[in-house]
Order: sequence, then C-alpha cells, then structure tokens
Amino acid sequence: MIVLFTDFGLSGPYVGQMKAVLHRDAPGIPVIDLFSDAPAFDAKRSAYLLAAYAEEFPAPAVFLAIVDPGVGGERRPLVVEADGRRYVGPDNGLFELVWRRAIRRRAAAVSWRPARLSASFHGRDLFAPVAARLATGSEVEMTAIDALAPEPRSWPDELAEIVYVDHYGNAMTGLRASRIDADALIEIGGRRLRRQRTFSDAAPGEAFWYENANGLVEISVNRGRADRDLGVFIGSSLAVGRP
Amino acid sequence: MIVLFTDFGLSGPYVGQMKAVLHRDAPGIPVIDLFSDAPAFDAKRSAYLLAAYAEEFPAPAVFLAIVDPGVGGERRPLVVEADGRRYVGPDNGLFELVWRRAIRRRAAAVSWRPARLSASFHGRDLFAPVAARLATGSEVEMTAIDALAPEPRSWPDELAEIVYVDHYGNAMTGLRASRIDADALIEIGGRRLRRQRTFSDAAPGEAFWYENANGLVEISVNRGRADRDLGVFIGSSLAVGRP
Amino acid sequence: MIVLFTDFGLSGPYVGQMKAVLHRDAPGIPVIDLFSDAPAFDAKRSAYLLAAYAEEFPAPAVFLAIVDPGVGGERRPLVVEADGRRYVGPDNGLFELVWRRAIRRRAAAVSWRPARLSASFHGRDLFAPVAARLATGSEVEMTAIDALAPEPRSWPDELAEIVYVDHYGNAMTGLRASRIDADALIEIGGRRLRRQRTFSDAAPGEAFWYENANGLVEISVNRGRADRDLGVFIGSSLAVGRP
Repeated sequence: MIVLFTDFGLSGPYVGQMKAVLHRDAPGIPVIDLFSDAPAFDAKRSAYLLAAYAEEFPAPAVFLAIVDPGVGGERRPLVVEADGRRYVGPDNGLFELVWRRAIRRRAAAVSWRPARLSASFHGRDLFAPVAARLATGSEVEMTAIDALAPEPRSWPDELAEIVYVDHYGNAMTGLRASRIDADALIEIGGRRLRRQRTFSDAAPGEAFWYENANGLVEISVNRGRADRDLGVFIGSSLAVGRP
Repeated sequence: MIVLFTDFGLSGPYVGQMKAVLHRDAPGIPVIDLFSDAPAFDAKRSAYLLAAYAEEFPAPAVFLAIVDPGVGGERRPLVVEADGRRYVGPDNGLFELVWRRAIRRRAAAVSWRPARLSASFHGRDLFAPVAARLATGSEVEMTAIDALAPEPRSWPDELAEIVYVDHYGNAMTGLRASRIDADALIEIGGRRLRRQRTFSDAAPGEAFWYENANGLVEISVNRGRADRDLGVFIGSSLAVGRP
Repeated sequence: MIVLFTDFGLSGPYVGQMKAVLHRDAPGIPVIDLFSDAPAFDAKRSAYLLAAYAEEFPAPAVFLAIVDPGVGGERRPLVVEADGRRYVGPDNGLFELVWRRAIRRRAAAVSWRPARLSASFHGRDLFAPVAARLATGSEVEMTAIDALAPEPRSWPDELAEIVYVDHYGNAMTGLRASRIDADALIEIGGRRLRRQRTFSDAAPGEAFWYENANGLVEISVNRGRADRDLGVFIGSSLAVGRP
C-alpha cells in the first residue's frame, strides 16, 4: 500500500499526476489519500501530524510524504525506514518525529535521478517513482546516512500548538494524549478546557479536549466549530495546565 | 461495489482512513465516493439526498453512509437492506427515506464490535469493517429489528427544503419531481420559478427549477449561481404553488 | 487509463457518479483525476489547460473531458484522436488546442445514445459510457467529421491570460514557456516579472514567472500567494515584454 501525505491541496492536478506515475510504475498497488491538505509549506507541523497518522497503517506501507517548500533547492531526497514502514520525501524535518519515535530505523539519501526532472515538481518526477519502486520491491540507488537534517532536532517531542483544523472545525494539536494527565486542562483562546471522552458526552456548544481517534489531543465544540468559536487556527499555541 | 456517503468533508484524513480499512478487509472491491460533503451533522436532510442518489446503483451495492453527530453515544449501528441494496451506518434517521420507499426491506442492529473501538471514529473502526464484510459475503454478528429509530417517522415523504448546494451553486431540494406537477411554480427566496427542461432552455441569468439527473427538484440559474442569486442555502424552505 | 478533466468541482456526487459508470463499463481500467476544477463553464481557458496537461499521459490514454455549459442543447458529443490519445467530450472548443497542435488527428461525432439520457448530466449518461468503450476497445457508433466547432478557430495559439489558480495561489497562464524568450518580462497586475528557474531561486516574497512542470508560464510568489499578492484571477490578462 502507498499512502499519500502532501500539502498539494484538494484542487488541481498534482495529486492526480502523482497517481498516474504510481499506476505506471506500481500497477495494482492500492494508493490511499491520507492528507492532501497538510499544513502548506509547513514541514514542522506536518511532521507531528504524519507521525500520529502513520501508526495505524501496517508495515511495510510506503508513505509518499511531500511538504516541500524547498523543492528544486539543496535539500536531499530521502528514504526513511522506521519500524518497518517506509517514507519517501524531502529531508526538511517532515520525518523528524517518525524518526525520533522509532525503535528500528535507518535512512538513506536517494541518488537516483529520473531522465526528466522538473525544477518544481519532484513529487511527480522523483518521489513518486521512488515510492513505486519501494512498493514493488525494485532497487533504488541510494546512500545510507546516519542522521536527518540537523535543524529539526531542536523541535520538542510534543508540540503545544494547533497543527491541523478539520472540516468540522476541530483543531488537532501536536500533543499526544497519552503524555497528558487525563484531568489536565488545556488553555487556549483565553479558555480552560477539560477533557471529555467524545462529542456526545459534552453539552451542546461546550468546548472540550479529547483524545482523537489517532491519539492526538484535539480541541472541539459539540455541535459547533472549535476554530471559529475559540478563534484558533494552525499555529495557535496552547498550554497544558493543572486542574 | 462499496459506495461512500458521508459528511466527513473533502479535506482531512477521514475518508482515506476508511478506504484503507476497506482495502484491508475487502481487497479488490471498487469503492466509489458519492458524497463526502453531505449536510454536516444533518441526518434529516442527508436522508433525502441519500434516497435520491442511491437508486442509480444496482443491487447489491453496499452503502457506507455516515452522518453521525451522536457517535460514541447510544444510537445503534445498523444494517438496512432495501430492495437488494445494503446500507451500513447509524440509526438516526439517515436511512428513513430509503426504508420508507422500499418494497422489500429488513434491518438489523449490529452487535459485532472490533477489538479496538475509538470513541469518535466509528466510520473507520466499526462501520467500514462491517461494510467490507457485507461486500465480501462474510458473516456479521447482528440482530434483526422491526423498526428504525422512532423520531424520523414524523418526517414528510417530500421535504420542501434545500438539502444540498453543489459546486455550481445549484440548490437541490428534498422534493421528487415526479410528485410535482410539471407546470407547478416553486416559491423560494421571494421568487416564483417555473420549470425548464435544462439549463440551455433557460435564458442567461434566468432562475428556474428542473428535474435533476437523479429525479430531485433542483433550483438553478443558467450561467449563474442559484445560492447567491436567490440567497438560499441548506435548510431554506420553499413552497410549491399553482400557476 | 482513463483521465478525468472536468469542471464538476471537488464536492458533490458528479465525479463519483461518473466513476461508478466507468467501473461498470470498463472494470479494472485505472481512472485518474487530473482536474475536477477546470475553469467552470469556461471551455476556452480549459482548452489551454487540457492541452498542456494531456501531454504527459502516454497514448492511448482516454480523456473524459467535460466543461459543458451547453449540456442538453445542440452541441455535438465528440471523440477526438490526437497523436494517439483519445478525447471524449462536448464540441464547444474544449479540444481546439489539442486538435490544433496534433500531428496525427481525426474526429467523429458520436451518434450512439444511451437508453436513458438525462437532460443535464451527459457526463454520466453519455460521455462516460463512450469513454469506457474506447478504453476497452468496444465499438462506438459515430460519424467522422472534418472539423471541430468553428468559433474557436479564432482563439490564439498562446493565450495571454490566467487560466488556472492552484491551491498555493500560483497562477497558470495559457502561454507555453517554450514560445517565450527566457529573458522576457511578464507584465501583470501592474508589475513586471522576470523569470526564475523555480521557487527556491527567488527571494522570499519575490514575484516571478517560471516554466511550470507542464511547460506553461506560471506566475508565482516564493512563500506567498500570487493570486492575492498580485490581485490576479482566472481571466486576468497579461503581456509579454522585452527587458
């Protein structure tokens, strides 16, 4: 299985163009759209999102993960293997949390280049063919490396910020609920929110936090929109407080 | 074939996460996205939409239909069989119109539960595995029931409201055109609209109603947007008048 | 492979309904979403976009291309074969640039009609079944024609306008970069822009033009949005100037 995680957007041709390459180079392999709207140009917040959502896919899934504002520049194209799952994408921090949390891991810089490499769409020209080769068990020319890009090492293990806002206005954070006390209060948007098990346990209009279905702390309003009701957006910071 | 009808939105991971489960549990079965943007949290208006759009799919298609504001609460997970088509989703009225219009029908409450059931994403954890089992002919543990949830029985057979607004601004109603006289006028947004066969029969800028390709009364403006030009939205009510 | 190019929008049922027909009539043939948000009702600007993006798909791909404001009216349903690729859609100019640029080409008006033809959704009822037949090698009843619709012949070979704005705010034009001097300046939105190789070669916030990954002149702002920063949108005209 090949899983797509990009900031390419829902509209436009880019996801389809990549899928055409995957069909050509890995015919018959299922392709799943996980996120097409990861935080745009934002490898950091995307990294926390990817790490939380990759876990539910069984190894040896291949993640084609592209949030790549530096496309065409110096950043290396990477293959990361972490606890059996494979990740293909740019070496800009996007895989930092996956890497850091893995027990078994290794990484390589891809040295293979396609005959035709555009300056702006490495997703189609470079990363998708590499993902297809990994998924089909073909060889990819690459060189083992010991460490990923250095800057992201300063990122925290848990990111106390909003990293994604969904269709309903629910605001996902970069915090894993398992690292937070169940009776902790989340302070955000001038409010102190307590935990609920899920939506139907909250009163209509009540803002709360809960452990979402992928283990992240998520800010929600029952039958409302957390983004609008609390005035929060991607990048809003929050604090974890004591009751 | 498995047909998806949800209010999960176009963005975000939810549809993809469900599809990954369907690929795992029903490999090779085609999956069709019908609606990902059914009216959010709105089982009633979604019910009229589902009933109109399900008809074109040949039995024994399986509909994985989820508009489920009460997820994690008391509502039952349901399998409905109506004229050979199967429906999986919550017992909150979403299947009321399909049920009411069926000649041959039966329903069951799903008693099977997965090993891991999140509090907020039964689409992935419960409904998708059940749909996959129905599509592949596997057993699902369930108990026959005689009736669906009681409250929706008060809903009308034809809903004189806007139930969906499409990409072009066309406003679908919960009325079936076959139940309306061809020369009826639709009163909405302070206007009285007459019927046209289709867009190209209306003058540019003319607002009209027509029988859409799935049999619903739909409000449109030729080369315009009915939603903006008439000021209507999901939930706007309308009246059927005599010429 | 069947490639979809429509203005049906990302939301709503229309793309899914067409895919259900393709699955029924051409089971097992891969279907790729290229554009679901081609300029709405705008066959002209869509024609330049289609011609640029079709090229990367190897013959004998079948393009199901529908931007069809005249649906239900007099325009002919068409099959165009151009350099081995096949195109199915309305005869309203949408295939004009593909046709004009082809070395080997032929066209036919489709005379086949389905048993059930709605007045407003020929994509589902007529064009998708025809595309499925072409993709599977089945016969389609049609009559060879010598020329496409006459009006589009006045369209220029290169369209100096914005034809599409992507998710990031990048503005694609109807100009092919290979027809423009590399040191040309593009005048748009009161600015004169010079060429860059790609985003990472421009300063943050710099507006520039570049040859996008499909050969079109595209207006972009590094780490910004060209649409907002330059105030341009689909239909905005531009000029090519000398340095």
